[in-house]
Amino acid sequence: MTGTEAPLDRFYSVIPAGGIGSRLWPLSRADAPKFLHDLTGSGKSLVRSTWERLVPLSGPDRIMVVMGRAHRAAVEAVIPELADHNVVLESEPKDSSAAIGLAAAILEHREPGVIVGSFAADHVIGQERRFRRAVAEAVAAADAGYIATVGITPTEPAIGFGYISCTEPMPLDGAPSALGVGAFVEKPDLETAERYVRGGDHLWNAGMFISRADVLLEQMAKSKPELVAGLRELAEAWDSPRRGAVVDAVWPRLEKIAIDYSVAEPAAAEGKLTVIPGDFDWDDVGDFASIAKLHSGGRKSDLAILGENARVLADASSGVVVSQSGRLISLIGVQDIVVVDTPDALLVTTSANAQRVKAVVDALKISGRSDVL
Amino acid sequence: MTGTEAPLDRFYSVIPAGGIGSRLWPLSRADAPKFLHDLTGSGKSLVRSTWERLVPLSGPDRIMVVMGRAHRAAVEAVIPELADHNVVLESEPKDSSAAIGLAAAILEHREPGVIVGSFAADHVIGQERRFRRAVAEAVAAADAGYIATVGITPTEPAIGFGYISCTEPMPLDGAPSALGVGAFVEKPDLETAERYVRGGDHLWNAGMFISRADVLLEQMAKSKPELVAGLRELAEAWDSPRRGAVVDAVWPRLEKIAIDYSVAEPAAAEGKLTVIPGDFDWDDVGDFASIAKLHSGGRKSDLAILGENARVLADASSGVVVSQSGRLISLIGVQDIVVVDTPDALLVTTSANAQRVKAVVDALKISGRSDVL
Repeated sequence: MTGTEAPLDRFYSVIPAGGIGSRLWPLSRADAPKFLHDLTGSGKSLVRSTWERLVPLSGPDRIMVVMGRAHRAAVEAVIPELADHNVVLESEPKDSSAAIGLAAAILEHREPGVIVGSFAADHVIGQERRFRRAVAEAVAAADAGYIATVGITPTEPAIGFGYISCTEPMPLDGAPSALGVGAFVEKPDLETAERYVRGGDHLWNAGMFISRADVLLEQMAKSKPELVAGLRELAEAWDSPRRGAVVDAVWPRLEKIAIDYSVAEPAAAEGKLTVIPGDFDWDDVGDFASIAKLHSGGRKSDLAILGENARVLADASSGVVVSQSGRLISLIGVQDIVVVDTPDALLVTTSANAQRVKAVVDALKISGRSDVL
Repeated sequence: MTGTEAPLDRFYSVIPAGGIGSRLWPLSRADAPKFLHDLTGSGKSLVRSTWERLVPLSGPDRIMVVMGRAHRAAVEAVIPELADHNVVLESEPKDSSAAIGLAAAILEHREPGVIVGSFAADHVIGQERRFRRAVAEAVAAADAGYIATVGITPTEPAIGFGYISCTEPMPLDGAPSALGVGAFVEKPDLETAERYVRGGDHLWNAGMFISRADVLLEQMAKSKPELVAGLRELAEAWDSPRRGAVVDAVWPRLEKIAIDYSVAEPAAAEGKLTVIPGDFDWDDVGDFASIAKLHSGGRKSDLAILGENARVLADASSGVVVSQSGRLISLIGVQDIVVVDTPDALLVTTSANAQRVKAVVDALKISGRSDVL
C-alpha cells in the first residue's frame, strides 16, 4: 500500500476551522470565531499561526482548510497563499467527522495513498521543532497503516482536556517513540487528573489525527457507514460541475459527530491507534483562564493585556484584559480578573469562573439576544 | 437684629453645585459632575432632588445655585424653575468659602437680615420631613445670632465623613435640640470612628451651614478679611452693569479655602456654633461603595444596577454596575464588584477599593489623558 516516495512527501495537512469558542465570548463570536483572533500577542491570528506551523511539514500547496462559508473572506485575508483547491466550504457546521472526513475523501480521490493529518485551527503550540518531529513520526506510523495521534505530555493536572491512556511502546520504522493506546478518556475530575499526571502514562488529547486517508475513511465507515458513503459521494463530485448540486443534496443529511467518537475511540479499542508523545508546549486556549496563563507564564501576579490599541491603567490587579473597544480600561485592586471589552458587550469574571462563560452564551441564545453572539 | 417676620420667611437656600466627584470617575466628569447624575435610581439628578427638598423650606424663588459657567445649561435643564436672579456663575472654581460667601454677600446686599443655609448639590437625603424639621430649628438658631449646622446621627463608624463633637444642650427659642459644638474633626480612622459612635456625642458633618448672612460674613472676615472684602465688592456690583468687570478683576484673586476652615472651625472655637442633630438618612455618595450600599439597603449579596438602558446579565455576582454605554454587561462570579461602563472609559474595581478611584483620576491627569476626565 505504501507509495514509492518518502511518507512526508505524501503528507497533506488539514485544518478544520470550525467552532466559535463560546467560552471566549464576547471576544469570539459567530462572525469572529476564536481561530481568527490573536490570543498570544504574536500579531497573528491562531489560524495563521497554525498555517505557518504546517508549511514546513507539508508545504503551502498541501494544506487544506475546511471552514464555514461565512469565514472564507476572513481566512483568505490572513492566509493569502491559500489556493482555491485547498478551500473546503461547509454550508452548515457538521462537526469534525464530516469536516475531516470530507477533506480526506477529496484528497484520497485526487491522490490515492495520501496521508492526511488534521490540526485544529485554534490551538497554541510552542517549540515547533519538537512539534514537527512528533508529526513526522506520526506520518511514518500512518504510512505503516496506523491511525496515529500526537499526545501531549501533561505539565499539570488539567481538568479542561481529554486524556489518552498509553500502553506499551510499539516502535515503528520512522516512529521510534510510538506507544499503544488503551483508551481515550473525557475531561477528568481533579483527583483523576492528578492520578494521571503522577502515573505518567496519560497524555493530553490535542485532537491531532494522522493517517492514510483510506485508512481513516475505512475506520469511520465501520461505525458510521452512511456518513462515509455521503462523504465519498461528495468527494467524487467535488472537482466536477456537479459539486454544488451534490453538496446541496448530501451535506445537510450528514450526521454530526466528533471524530473522537467515530474514529479514535473505536480504533483504540481495535488496537489500530498509536500515539506519539509530544513534549512541546500546547494549549487549546479554551477559556480566558487559559489565556491568562499563557501570557503570565504561570505567574499569578501578572496582568495580561490583549488588544492592538489597548489603553489599560491597572493598580494592584492581575488576570487578563482583552480590549477591542479602544476605551480606557482602569482596574483597581482586582485579582485574577477577566475583563473582555468589545464594542457591544462587556464581560467581567474571574479566572476561576472562566469555564462558566459558555453558560452565559447559552442564556443569551435562549433569551434571544443573539445580536451579541 | 431680628426682623419682624418669622425666621423661615427670611430664609434663603444656597446650593453650591461644585466639585466633580473624582471618586465617582468615570461616571462623574468635568463636564458631567456628580450632581448632574441620578445615583439613587429615582429618575432625578442629585441637584434636582436637592432643589425639590429645599422648595418646601424657602420656596422656589428663594433658592440660589452657585455653579461653574460650564454647567449652567445642564442645571437649568433639570431645574427650569431656576430664576436668573438665583443663578451665580463662577468663572473658575474657588472652593466653598467663596461660593457660599458670595451668595451670602449678594443676598445680604439685596435683603439685609436674610438668613442663608447652604446645602451640597450632590448629597442624598431620606426622611425629608425630619430634614426639614432640623433645618427649621437651625434657622431659628441662626435668627438668634448663631452659625448653625445640622449634624447627622451616625448609623455606623464611617471613616469617609468628618465628625462634629457636641458639648452641652443649649436649647434656643425654636431650636430645642440645639447642642454646643466642641470641634470639627477630619475623617477619622476606624478605631476612632468606632469610639465616636459608641460615645454618642459625635455627629456626621454634612456640610450644612445656616446663619444670618451678615453673621457668616463677619465670622469669615475674622480669618479671611481679604476674601470677604472681595466678596462684598462683588456683591455691591452684582446687580449693576459693573458686574462683569468686577468679576473679572476680583474673582481670580480670591483665596481658595473650604468654609469648614474659614468659618466653621473658628466659630466652633469661639462658641458661636450650634448643631442641630438630624436623625434622617443622609449620604454624601462619595464613592461607588456608597452607591452600592444605598441600593442594596446593606445586603451584601445584591447587585445594584444604575443606568437608563442598562442591559446586565449577572450570575452569582454582587456589587454595583453603572451602565452608560448601552452595551450588554455580563458578570460571572464576581463579588462586591464595581463596574462603571461609559462610552470612552471603563472602571473595574471592588467596593473595598472604591476610595482609590481618585488616585487613578490623579494618575490620568498627570499622564495627560484628560480626554476621559
